Amino acid sequence: MQIVKGGITKPKGFKACGLSCGIKRSGKPDLALIYSTVPAVASAVFTKNSIKAAPVIISKRHIRNNKAQAIVVNSGNANCFTGEIGLIYAEQTAILAGKLLNIPPKNIIVSSTGIIGKPFPYKKIQEALPKLINNLSDKEDGNVAKAILTTDKKTKEITVCVTLDGKKITIGTCAKGSGMISPDMATMLAFITTDAAISPGMLKLALKKATDKSFNCITIDGCMSTNDMVVIMANSLAGNKIIRETGEDFDIFYQALEYACIGLAKKIVLDGEGATKFIEINVRGARNEKQAKNIGLTIANSNLVKTAAYGNNPNWGRVAAAVGSLKISKITEETMEIKFSPFTKKEIIITVSLYIGGGNATVYTSDLSEEYIKINGKYN
Amino acid sequence: MQIVKGGITKPKGFKACGLSCGIKRSGKPDLALIYSTVPAVASAVFTKNSIKAAPVIISKRHIRNNKAQAIVVNSGNANCFTGEIGLIYAEQTAILAGKLLNIPPKNIIVSSTGIIGKPFPYKKIQEALPKLINNLSDKEDGNVAKAILTTDKKTKEITVCVTLDGKKITIGTCAKGSGMISPDMATMLAFITTDAAISPGMLKLALKKATDKSFNCITIDGCMSTNDMVVIMANSLAGNKIIRETGEDFDIFYQALEYACIGLAKKIVLDGEGATKFIEINVRGARNEKQAKNIGLTIANSNLVKTAAYGNNPNWGRVAAAVGSLKISKITEETMEIKFSPFTKKEIIITVSLYIGGGNATVYTSDLSEEYIKINGKYN
Repeated sequence: MQIVKGGITKPKGFKACGLSCGIKRSGKPDLALIYSTVPAVASAVFTKNSIKAAPVIISKRHIRNNKAQAIVVNSGNANCFTGEIGLIYAEQTAILAGKLLNIPPKNIIVSSTGIIGKPFPYKKIQEALPKLINNLSDKEDGNVAKAILTTDKKTKEITVCVTLDGKKITIGTCAKGSGMISPDMATMLAFITTDAAISPGMLKLALKKATDKSFNCITIDGCMSTNDMVVIMANSLAGNKIIRETGEDFDIFYQALEYACIGLAKKIVLDGEGATKFIEINVRGARNEKQAKNIGLTIANSNLVKTAAYGNNPNWGRVAAAVGSLKISKITEETMEIKFSPFTKKEIIITVSLYIGGGNATVYTSDLSEEYIKINGKYN
Repeated sequence: MQIVKGGITKPKGFKACGLSCGIKRSGKPDLALIYSTVPAVASAVFTKNSIKAAPVIISKRHIRNNKAQAIVVNSGNANCFTGEIGLIYAEQTAILAGKLLNIPPKNIIVSSTGIIGKPFPYKKIQEALPKLINNLSDKEDGNVAKAILTTDKKTKEITVCVTLDGKKITIGTCAKGSGMISPDMATMLAFITTDAAISPGMLKLALKKATDKSFNCITIDGCMSTNDMVVIMANSLAGNKIIRETGEDFDIFYQALEYACIGLAKKIVLDGEGATKFIEINVRGARNEKQAKNIGLTIANSNLVKTAAYGNNPNWGRVAAAVGSLKISKITEETMEIKFSPFTKKEIIITVSLYIGGGNATVYTSDLSEEYIKINGKYN
């Protein structure tokens, strides 16, 4: 596996454009289009929040055919809690983009991130779409990665290459965080393009597995978003023999995808709202992997653990109390072992060993600082 | 019902003393004794955290006989995660106090609050116990209320009187917060004395009900403590006909107890670490009361809701997202109604109406400010 520069336009046959259409008052980029020159096999994972934004509802319908050729995404407005008109606008966005690109609206994914409950500025998107399409290119200018940001400070892109039957396959990605991040898919936006040839079933399996190991293992503030999604498009232009089953080819593709997704997830944590530290939590010896992950996330979501990390206080009592709050009767003071890496570093590793079974998991989180309060309290 | 001044020594036959024995480096009071001149019927509720502090383990055993005559409580050290020696010290505290008071150690409740994982300073308690006992009095000096505090800024006492068959019955209380407060009993310390005559079964029922309506409806930071407990002692010196069953007498006693407990719970929230606002969350029309409470607590524990309150931002999108995170399929954008009282006030009321059933609940929380981060991050 090779890690290369570039983003979602690195794989063959992908073009993109990111620009400002005036949703963000700051004038920063807020609208993007990712386009495959040929129809692609596609898969997606969506938020499990029962309050779903309009683009999530529409895109869930569109992805049912396992195909997509374009993604229209805006930042600055979540198109959530916007009623019937929000749904119409989300659908209209797909219809108009489809008309201009000459592809069925069903093959277009729409996505939004930003403030909840504000009227959706469809007119701005409507006006900007022709320009967005005219400016599609395979340049690696990072404009899409910029246009999807909200409170993020940095763009997040990872691109990797692998070789399958002598054909070079590229996976390009970009993502945004950085508050309202909690597992349970999907609590951020991530877009993945690849020129690999892979069947819908195998693509779905790979995305599900990779998501469970990455985006579902991170938490910033334990708050689950209404909007977020991870979408992958695979357009087969690399020319490899189509991956139709698990096996060596699938594994090579999967490893590359997992690497990219974990990398993106870590970037999201590093850029978490107000984050000054990156915290890795390893849970070892739980009953099973699911329990280990649950324990890890409970520790990660404890405000007391997060503030202790922020203040360079290796307070294992708070870690123990968080584990105990799950009321798992087998876990007692006697069986629990808690280890810390030095707390003065920017990266902290907390390892909790439980000795009750073979379940291990690693989750990632950030600390909790005054800056988080400022960002989320005083944003008006 | 009459609300009167005073605290745990207000009911007949109760004496107390609070002093400094040197556990807290600040020299502030850190050891207290609450004593009934006659054996009392007693009941208690303890933390459900599976990591339990030594005094919780010991007191759970002692309360099994439904009797207690004294409570020894210290602040500054939680005696939690202190191993076998911590258990021995907790038991030794009861044994020594029992010897000095000439009562069985089983009738003594021990309680601790403070830092987890530090060796328990038994020697200081051992040395101070004779003085503590010599200075027992029924003066209303608030010294016990002071001696149980940790990061609390204010003492918390409520005392109420009711009349049962012409006899005046008094309920005196004191409590401490103020971080690691989350429901699921018991996440703080509360001590309740009364001169009512009541059977163990009825006392247990009254305490359980009142706790569910008060201490189990508050959350500061969603973190469940390892130490906390609510204890009630009823010494029957008021001379009322013993309450042996539910009915009018029980109801009168219960209402007074509930009033006192809700009042204490609210005081704990008001004095929550870094709190600048008091937030009441009313959930209406959930499937049942349990679901309503769960929804209320989920909203109350959302860092995004808490920071919005802190910043005077009535952001109902965050409330909706928190509700949605519970993934209750019947609850959708269309069915949910969210109302806010003016956000600029010090007391905020958030009302969420769901229209799916008859379950209502009210929970209380505080906002999340930079001060919470400072208290919990920079405490060293």
